[in-house]
Amino acid sequence: MSRDLVVALSGGVGGAKLALGLSKVVAPENLLIVANTGDDFEHLGLSISPDIDTLTYALSGLDNQTLGWGRRDESWNFMEVLATLGGPAWFRLGDRDLALHVARTMRLKAGESLSAITADMTRRLGIAARVLPMSEDPVRTRVDSDEGLLDFQDYFVGRQCRPVVKALRFDGAAAARAHPDFLAALASPRLRAIVICPSNPFISVEPILALPGVREAFAARTAPCVAVSPIIGGKAVKGPTAKMMAELGLPAGAASVARRYGALLDGYVLDAQDAAEAQGLSARCVTAPTLMTSLEDKVALARVALELADALRA
Amino acid sequence: MSRDLVVALSGGVGGAKLALGLSKVVAPENLLIVANTGDDFEHLGLSISPDIDTLTYALSGLDNQTLGWGRRDESWNFMEVLATLGGPAWFRLGDRDLALHVARTMRLKAGESLSAITADMTRRLGIAARVLPMSEDPVRTRVDSDEGLLDFQDYFVGRQCRPVVKALRFDGAAAARAHPDFLAALASPRLRAIVICPSNPFISVEPILALPGVREAFAARTAPCVAVSPIIGGKAVKGPTAKMMAELGLPAGAASVARRYGALLDGYVLDAQDAAEAQGLSARCVTAPTLMTSLEDKVALARVALELADALRA
Repeated sequence: MSRDLVVALSGGVGGAKLALGLSKVVAPENLLIVANTGDDFEHLGLSISPDIDTLTYALSGLDNQTLGWGRRDESWNFMEVLATLGGPAWFRLGDRDLALHVARTMRLKAGESLSAITADMTRRLGIAARVLPMSEDPVRTRVDSDEGLLDFQDYFVGRQCRPVVKALRFDGAAAARAHPDFLAALASPRLRAIVICPSNPFISVEPILALPGVREAFAARTAPCVAVSPIIGGKAVKGPTAKMMAELGLPAGAASVARRYGALLDGYVLDAQDAAEAQGLSARCVTAPTLMTSLEDKVALARVALELADALRA
Repeated sequence: MSRDLVVALSGGVGGAKLALGLSKVVAPENLLIVANTGDDFEHLGLSISPDIDTLTYALSGLDNQTLGWGRRDESWNFMEVLATLGGPAWFRLGDRDLALHVARTMRLKAGESLSAITADMTRRLGIAARVLPMSEDPVRTRVDSDEGLLDFQDYFVGRQCRPVVKALRFDGAAAARAHPDFLAALASPRLRAIVICPSNPFISVEPILALPGVREAFAARTAPCVAVSPIIGGKAVKGPTAKMMAELGLPAGAASVARRYGALLDGYVLDAQDAAEAQGLSARCVTAPTLMTSLEDKVALARVALELADALRA
């Protein structure tokens, strides 16, 4: 049996960039992109899955590269009127983006699973690879902060990550079931590599790892797990990763992320400017340009991660 | 005590035109516009109140006069994407219009009443007169047709009124409570006139009349009730009124509408070209230009209806 199956763990923007790269170098039937759903929330009566959506837009080429979130060619007429009607305007939903949330909410209420809806929608948008929610069950990341316990989007969007993080909680995770297709892929004799995309470890990857059975499946893995550092030159490309590390008492730098993953990691891809961080890490490290701007950057980095995994397996 | 209170019963487009005329000649604190909610339905998970919305847009000047429904300056990006995602596209919701439905649905779910939400939204849109849902309780008009029993919007929008109507049902009406402010206004010693706007009698006015206590309150009225004919030259300006009349076995023409209202009516305003229809009606009839194109037309017709009521009371 050939080792051809790649399982990628991803959060939003940074992770989605590498997922897009992977989708160009791995045949679609061999790529399973497992999306964090700890950021999911209900807003305006809608079920919103920010990381699934970001992956969907990135993989279909519909992502808004100017904003860095949401959908391209967006209009904001809904939000404008909502504000005049006294509706909440802190979480911005574009007119086109809204269709995804309304259609998903309707189908969830009709009893379809989040994974079935995601599979259908990604297919309709021309995405061949599979985007799989980490679980069908609700997991809600909450931020224990100096301003109290905050819902994730309240912290992330509402307060723009300003509160000081003391700890993160993944409410519902202990009772949630990791998606069986995710667990099956981790245990598959076809597994070539597990790739932890360059997403925020604390809020994008750890909710996935918090699901019952996932750490055990990682421990029993028969193929290497490789992470790509979300830190470049000691800083996060986007988002609060570096700020959170400081607040959680972790040393700044790419090494902290690898240490956080610990024994889960066999390989680690760091940016060339962070080469010194590789010192003392137990994972095998390679350096590469990890800032993904162009599609070529994404494809090249995906190749580096897979080559590292293949080398580790060899 | 002065007789200054005007209660107007209205459905959608035709009724809303006269309601706008009334709002220009009656002080806002003296005008209660009672909206049919039999057309209300749930679509895409949203609570949609078409007649309240049409009144809201007409009274705020936001109505789309090109389409004849919905909101002016509308964009359709949401619908376009919804269709690509396989969502239902038969009921068109513009990007701006959508905000009204989302905000209302959210507030209903949070426990606010439809009348409180309507009052707040109309105020925010600069409407001084009061638009009141006929009831807080759900009433759902269903069409018994040659294609079976159809939900109203399925008949009206989905099948564009093509099925032959055998009868109309107002599910929930018998158990619904007419809004107490509506009943109080009908019984008020301040009542100057009840105006039945030129809406479809079968689907816009009769759901209101079907609520327990409403016909009794009409029977006990101490001020005249005046209707404006929705039929001009034997035809409906818009909508299926004339077609329904034929299907229900009623003679074509403005007189049929007055006879349908029967003893509820003290006065009836017909178009000049339907003057012959006044023959034999028990209500006092006046003729006037009833086609409302300009704001001036609407104001003039509102004055005619109120003058007829005042003459009947004198």
